[in-house]
Amino acid sequence: MANTPITPRAENYAQWYQDVIAQAELAEAAGVVKGCMVIRPHGFAIWEKMQADLDRRFKETGHQNACFPMLIPMSFLEKEAEHVEGFAPELAIVTHAGGKELEDKYCIRPTSETIIGHFFSRWIDSHRDLPLLINQWANVMRWELRTRLFLRTGEFLWQEGHTAHSTHAEAREEVARMLDVYADFAREVMAMPVVRGVKTANERFAGALETRTIEAWMQDGKALQSGTSHDLGQNFGKAFNVMFQNDAGEREYVWQTSWGVSTRLVGALIMSHSDDNGLVLPPRMAPIHVAIVPIFRKDEERAAVLEAAGRIADELRADGLVVEVDDREGLKPGAKYYHWERKGVPLRLEIGPRDIAEGAVMAKRRVADLDERGRPKKEKIPMEGIGAAVGKVLDELQVDLFERALARREADTVSIDSWDDFQAVYADGGSKFVYAHWDGTTETELAIKEATKATIRCVPLAGEGPEVEPGVCIHSGQPSAQRVLFAKNY
Amino acid sequence: MANTPITPRAENYAQWYQDVIAQAELAEAAGVVKGCMVIRPHGFAIWEKMQADLDRRFKETGHQNACFPMLIPMSFLEKEAEHVEGFAPELAIVTHAGGKELEDKYCIRPTSETIIGHFFSRWIDSHRDLPLLINQWANVMRWELRTRLFLRTGEFLWQEGHTAHSTHAEAREEVARMLDVYADFAREVMAMPVVRGVKTANERFAGALETRTIEAWMQDGKALQSGTSHDLGQNFGKAFNVMFQNDAGEREYVWQTSWGVSTRLVGALIMSHSDDNGLVLPPRMAPIHVAIVPIFRKDEERAAVLEAAGRIADELRADGLVVEVDDREGLKPGAKYYHWERKGVPLRLEIGPRDIAEGAVMAKRRVADLDERGRPKKEKIPMEGIGAAVGKVLDELQVDLFERALARREADTVSIDSWDDFQAVYADGGSKFVYAHWDGTTETELAIKEATKATIRCVPLAGEGPEVEPGVCIHSGQPSAQRVLFAKNY
Repeated sequence: MANTPITPRAENYAQWYQDVIAQAELAEAAGVVKGCMVIRPHGFAIWEKMQADLDRRFKETGHQNACFPMLIPMSFLEKEAEHVEGFAPELAIVTHAGGKELEDKYCIRPTSETIIGHFFSRWIDSHRDLPLLINQWANVMRWELRTRLFLRTGEFLWQEGHTAHSTHAEAREEVARMLDVYADFAREVMAMPVVRGVKTANERFAGALETRTIEAWMQDGKALQSGTSHDLGQNFGKAFNVMFQNDAGEREYVWQTSWGVSTRLVGALIMSHSDDNGLVLPPRMAPIHVAIVPIFRKDEERAAVLEAAGRIADELRADGLVVEVDDREGLKPGAKYYHWERKGVPLRLEIGPRDIAEGAVMAKRRVADLDERGRPKKEKIPMEGIGAAVGKVLDELQVDLFERALARREADTVSIDSWDDFQAVYADGGSKFVYAHWDGTTETELAIKEATKATIRCVPLAGEGPEVEPGVCIHSGQPSAQRVLFAKNY
Repeated sequence: MANTPITPRAENYAQWYQDVIAQAELAEAAGVVKGCMVIRPHGFAIWEKMQADLDRRFKETGHQNACFPMLIPMSFLEKEAEHVEGFAPELAIVTHAGGKELEDKYCIRPTSETIIGHFFSRWIDSHRDLPLLINQWANVMRWELRTRLFLRTGEFLWQEGHTAHSTHAEAREEVARMLDVYADFAREVMAMPVVRGVKTANERFAGALETRTIEAWMQDGKALQSGTSHDLGQNFGKAFNVMFQNDAGEREYVWQTSWGVSTRLVGALIMSHSDDNGLVLPPRMAPIHVAIVPIFRKDEERAAVLEAAGRIADELRADGLVVEVDDREGLKPGAKYYHWERKGVPLRLEIGPRDIAEGAVMAKRRVADLDERGRPKKEKIPMEGIGAAVGKVLDELQVDLFERALARREADTVSIDSWDDFQAVYADGGSKFVYAHWDGTTETELAIKEATKATIRCVPLAGEGPEVEPGVCIHSGQPSAQRVLFAKNY
């Protein structure tokens, strides 16, 4: 494994993605369980970091975690007409249990609006019970035919927020608030630029009045829907009879929202930053921040080098960093560099006898500018005060990775007003982020998709896309209020 | 709900348990999903605290988290003969998915030895890949007919550790180490005394060579198996062909272990400490440490009292405590006391105008000694330095709850040498922890169970039960090497 090359992006992007995952040991296809995956420790550690940060944000915005059954009575799904139509083709059904055929069949949850709606109707009685702000970390199952590690798998891990409110305005505030939580997390922690926007009717969650989304740009020019926040209106309230008594003593249906992100974010992270040398992780997403490689030729150098490496590791750990000292025997430094590079470790420190004599170590960022000879820059860091210096390097790398990702996206984003130019972007398997005018109809949206495979990723919120100005639809020539974001998508 | 009485333990223990859970809003039966439950926010917050503490202990002992599919091919279970026999009656089966009947059926995992064994065989090749130390936090499904909230439910949450080693001795060390992790956690964090021991062949995990257990005493004299650690020998290694090349270059089967605790621990916690006034939580398990109840009669007192309450809350929060200031309008202080008592909050602070004038607040522990008039003691705590004082009270309560639980268990534990006395203990629905001699045969074990409903909970490890001394079996009169622990069980 250690010396298997990674397919370059330019040669085969899909294979590159698989190679990066395999060589960083993030996950693998389960094989024996159709469409499902095993998340290996290094991949799961990234998801744990995502969970910890998001969970803190959810709690800071007043949400509480709970746990609802993974099985949902089939009859529940049928109570909301659009919802069952959207999810029925993807359900996994439990027909037998405890050695008997079940009279009432269950599905494994594809999402939990229905069962949570049922319990909300038991818990909510008066306006004093509102808002009810619940989140669940869970596994869900959507039987998929074309799967891809992290991006689309039969079973996946996610969180699903479910809230109930006494007014539509308050529910819509919640929808916007949680989309912002996702966007802030993506930008600040994942170093991933995203476009916040509203989904078209055609791309809306099954059963929602409106779906908002954060859309991320991937290095092949495609978009990845990375988080969604839904205004459910009173649709599930009516289906599950979730009512409250308002101030005036009248019974009303509650207004609900739901919002979620999933292990798909791990895929988004991989594709946002990684390069032809393998995984790249922003420091705030890295399970291991620093790998220290001790370098020595003679046995008599060994003890001093390992001692210095251990001392530096302890100092960095005292600052809360996770540090690996790679003291494996029988491996050359180059093989160790290679290993930690593919794992996406943000910073490598090299320490040998000469470094000790100089009182400084050689530091190499996972992603660095090139020197005058075209090689990634290294820098000397004095051992004295190394904690602060390493902290600064990691902070800079975090910002730098966001800026590099943003620059790549901007370079691959265009505003287009001609249908010929539009078609040219998406010809021959190509994709870019294209801002173009659209007449607002599903008919035109589908015609554009049919012709180019590009879809409307979102109608950008104010400030997220190009300046809002009216124009004419790129396909129908009808009037358009603003440009919308097109791309092929995962 | 607020004024519903809790059934006293002496009147109906099972109903008391349900009442405590309902009034603390910990969980409820799902109803619409047979045998399953919804864990409500206050109950889930307790589980999150358990997870956080245990997860830290698992990582400190070198384990990494991962995630395996929740569906297991039915053919996998059949590869280990005892395993499938043990679990087949409890399986939930997925027969249809994606709109079609599946050729190969899946079960929802009842435990994951089989599927993890399969992946271990892909990941392990040489002795350098060992030990492999994996943990998974997951939901599992065992279709149960007689369920009880937290203690026995169709779906439950748990962690399952799965490890592979190159020698049996090393695997057995792991089994012992993880049992100790569980025992330490139960004692130090849950304030719950447990007996560490070995299960008899009859009570062993399906497919294990040996099962170790921690057994907790509940207030009705029954035992609750609270965590288990299994020596799987090479059984799953052989079933799934998990082999490694040893130092000598030969291929050998690995030695495996598995170990788990579940949301059952929440039930154990409830029954270990709670009383006829509702839930009692040791401070280290409490999602809310302190409830502050502001007391005022006149509107002009209100601002000063709330200001002081807020100031104290901030000071305690700065020490990492979770504090609720109960400023709800229209509720009398007594109703608020009642509310937080039932939620199990360890410490209540009462603050009124006179307290502010005195510079001290009234503190009431959730469980306290009685004063000379037979009422729970309260104590004054000066506002100056209240953080340290409250910390001390909580630390003392943590220790005190363990000692109270231990004293109750000791008072309900007996050594018995006469079969008549033994039968008397278990007559009329009774139960105690009984140490008695047993001849070591399954035949006698089952005869005793048949006669009394008491089972052998474990053969205590050295130092866990009474002094080890030989004797004669209480039922058969045959020789016995040491007393074993009997009780009825959940």
